[in-house]
Amino acid sequence: MNMYDIIYKKREGGALDKEEIEFFIDGYTNGSIPDYQASALLMTIFFQKMSREETYALTTSMKNSGDIVDLSEIEGIKVDKHSTGGVGDKTTLVVGPLAAACGVPIAKMSGRGLGFTGGTVDKMESIPGFKTTLEANEFISLVNRVGLSVIGQTAHIAPADKKLYALRDVTATVDNLSLITSSIMSKKLASGSDAIVLDVKCGNGAFMERLEDACELGELMVEIGKADGKKTIAVITDMNQPLGLAVGNSLEVIEAIETLKGKGPKDITELSLILASHMIYAGEKADSPEEGYQMAQQALESGAALKKFAEFIVGQGGDPKVIDDHTLFPRPSCFSEIHSEVDGFVGAIEARAIGLASQHSGAGRATKEDLIDLSAGIMLYKKVGDSVQRGDLLATVYGNDQARVDRGAQEAAAAFLIQDSQPKENALVKRVIQ
Amino acid sequence: MNMYDIIYKKREGGALDKEEIEFFIDGYTNGSIPDYQASALLMTIFFQKMSREETYALTTSMKNSGDIVDLSEIEGIKVDKHSTGGVGDKTTLVVGPLAAACGVPIAKMSGRGLGFTGGTVDKMESIPGFKTTLEANEFISLVNRVGLSVIGQTAHIAPADKKLYALRDVTATVDNLSLITSSIMSKKLASGSDAIVLDVKCGNGAFMERLEDACELGELMVEIGKADGKKTIAVITDMNQPLGLAVGNSLEVIEAIETLKGKGPKDITELSLILASHMIYAGEKADSPEEGYQMAQQALESGAALKKFAEFIVGQGGDPKVIDDHTLFPRPSCFSEIHSEVDGFVGAIEARAIGLASQHSGAGRATKEDLIDLSAGIMLYKKVGDSVQRGDLLATVYGNDQARVDRGAQEAAAAFLIQDSQPKENALVKRVIQ
Repeated sequence: MNMYDIIYKKREGGALDKEEIEFFIDGYTNGSIPDYQASALLMTIFFQKMSREETYALTTSMKNSGDIVDLSEIEGIKVDKHSTGGVGDKTTLVVGPLAAACGVPIAKMSGRGLGFTGGTVDKMESIPGFKTTLEANEFISLVNRVGLSVIGQTAHIAPADKKLYALRDVTATVDNLSLITSSIMSKKLASGSDAIVLDVKCGNGAFMERLEDACELGELMVEIGKADGKKTIAVITDMNQPLGLAVGNSLEVIEAIETLKGKGPKDITELSLILASHMIYAGEKADSPEEGYQMAQQALESGAALKKFAEFIVGQGGDPKVIDDHTLFPRPSCFSEIHSEVDGFVGAIEARAIGLASQHSGAGRATKEDLIDLSAGIMLYKKVGDSVQRGDLLATVYGNDQARVDRGAQEAAAAFLIQDSQPKENALVKRVIQ
Repeated sequence: MNMYDIIYKKREGGALDKEEIEFFIDGYTNGSIPDYQASALLMTIFFQKMSREETYALTTSMKNSGDIVDLSEIEGIKVDKHSTGGVGDKTTLVVGPLAAACGVPIAKMSGRGLGFTGGTVDKMESIPGFKTTLEANEFISLVNRVGLSVIGQTAHIAPADKKLYALRDVTATVDNLSLITSSIMSKKLASGSDAIVLDVKCGNGAFMERLEDACELGELMVEIGKADGKKTIAVITDMNQPLGLAVGNSLEVIEAIETLKGKGPKDITELSLILASHMIYAGEKADSPEEGYQMAQQALESGAALKKFAEFIVGQGGDPKVIDDHTLFPRPSCFSEIHSEVDGFVGAIEARAIGLASQHSGAGRATKEDLIDLSAGIMLYKKVGDSVQRGDLLATVYGNDQARVDRGAQEAAAAFLIQDSQPKENALVKRVIQ
């Protein structure tokens, strides 16, 4: 078996078998297959596509390229949640406490932000003292004790994905269903949970702009998860504008806290309840997602979820006083306001542009080595459908470098489309696939 | 401009402009663009193809990546000849003297063999004393004095092609019209001749197995040559069996000498006259290819071409006594004979298999660093259409390592198809494109 023949076979439309895919993944991970042959195969896969069988074999090989986390010492059905990436998406911070408050153990490995999307690990680190690097036994005992823990993903989870993703990123081979699926699912399946709820974003701020594509991705991921013996549910949700009003690290944690207090924006609150409902159902704490929804709502209204969040912060060494005193978060020294220049309605807020503006104001990384400003980001004061008058404040961009903040503000301003007529409302949840 | 955007644009079906192609070729040649982005783009080109305009821009950029040879000190219209690669193809050794004897100056840069095809430079070096590394001024004065010189191609001619070809070879991106065209034509256009006659091989021993594909390649190369201001003619010729009877370095030179004496195999003699006729016409020494053919025939029959070959050998330091005494060539110490096991007709001799058998007996290189055995190779005694009886000698494999020779003989034996009925004759020249 050699890599040339594998590239050639796929190029001519053949289906790669399990052994060939394993040969590629093992060889690429250990360095015996060079980048230039891997990128040629990735481009071939882009054009010729992969069948479900090939995608499953790819996912399995990638999963097996590193450690498989053993969470068997955690009691109950562990449920993981993953989002395909959005702007302002702080739902993990709300959903985790909601589901944990309803008895579902959440042992979550999460990533850092890159490009225009944020990462849960960065967000949590804006809480003073909060540690995301725990030993395996600390992590497990924390989940057993509190019901919820979030740690940074180690390099030992699906290292093949790490290497392949970096290559795809620079060779225009990211946007392929099978490659996206294998990238996400190899990590999820290696992370040790028993069930997975996937939040598949759809819209102009997501990988998948069209509903059909998002559904196809959701279906494929669900199928791959099930083939691996995990209960898997995909919820297709709207990403045509940022979620909630806050974008940036500490800003999003604050919004998550307010949401857990029952004072959050409608979209974040609703999406969190829906995702939690499926997690509670997948964790067999409810007989249906509908029952799970009621339980989540109850956990929110009773303050049980907020209490769980406080325990979670304490468990990971953070200061729970941030819940009531937001001045304890890193604070920005500069800001720049964006005002509407016309009367009308907000017709669109381009999520990707807002994500990039937030990144450029200091909240995100262009490369993995960049340091980020945890206080930087954007607060929106108007969302799609709101009426605005000339001079109304649309958003404020925060950070610690006035030039970067000004640049971010310019970009954020361009993300707003103000129009004469009120736009049609977009459904938040478009489909559930299970 | 950046490489990611160029890959993405081509991937989405866009046409790359001159500046983008130049950016790629310059960056890849100087090392600022890595192999893995280049291979991703090559695979994209394989799937999306390139227009004629893109192919011309690619060829021009590759041509300009190194030295452009200046042959202006050679009087007359310099004509180059190139073959897309065949087995047993020693026509350059016959065509050069034929055209030079008719007054066409031939200043040829030639390559070494790799894989199953031989190279003119290797073949010439089997003549004792023959040097293929001449200084530019020696080369030019030799052409002015004798009318013919052949030297090895330097690394300074189209270095982009050298690097790209090595990459294509290991990423399954060789067989694309635009990439083949730019590879061949960038070197030819940089080599300084005024006109080019291309021998485009077609059949199971060639890149292009189907006539349509060979014609498409010929047309594209002719168009690119003309766009660069060179008279360009492509002759589509048969490569469904080895050319002539000899395959290997000294064996092929001996056959070329015998052909120049008027005693060569019919196919080599005929193909050489036809290619020479177009070169004589392209060099404006004849008003038509037909007149060129008569002139070439005259040069062959009169012995003028053989005399030119002797002068050519002397000019490059070789011993012209080889012309009459073939024992002066490197000689093999081992051989292995192949006999027919049945009665019938030779239905096919798989050219590629014969080329590989010759390579494995010692005549060729698997990698550029391999040393070759100039005496090794294969003599065929039967060609397609010949009748054979059980026990007839089909071929003899020569070399200096009995194990390698035996392996070669086994492979060569498998290349012969003996059948009951006499096969249809294949036309030697299928089309002329100009």
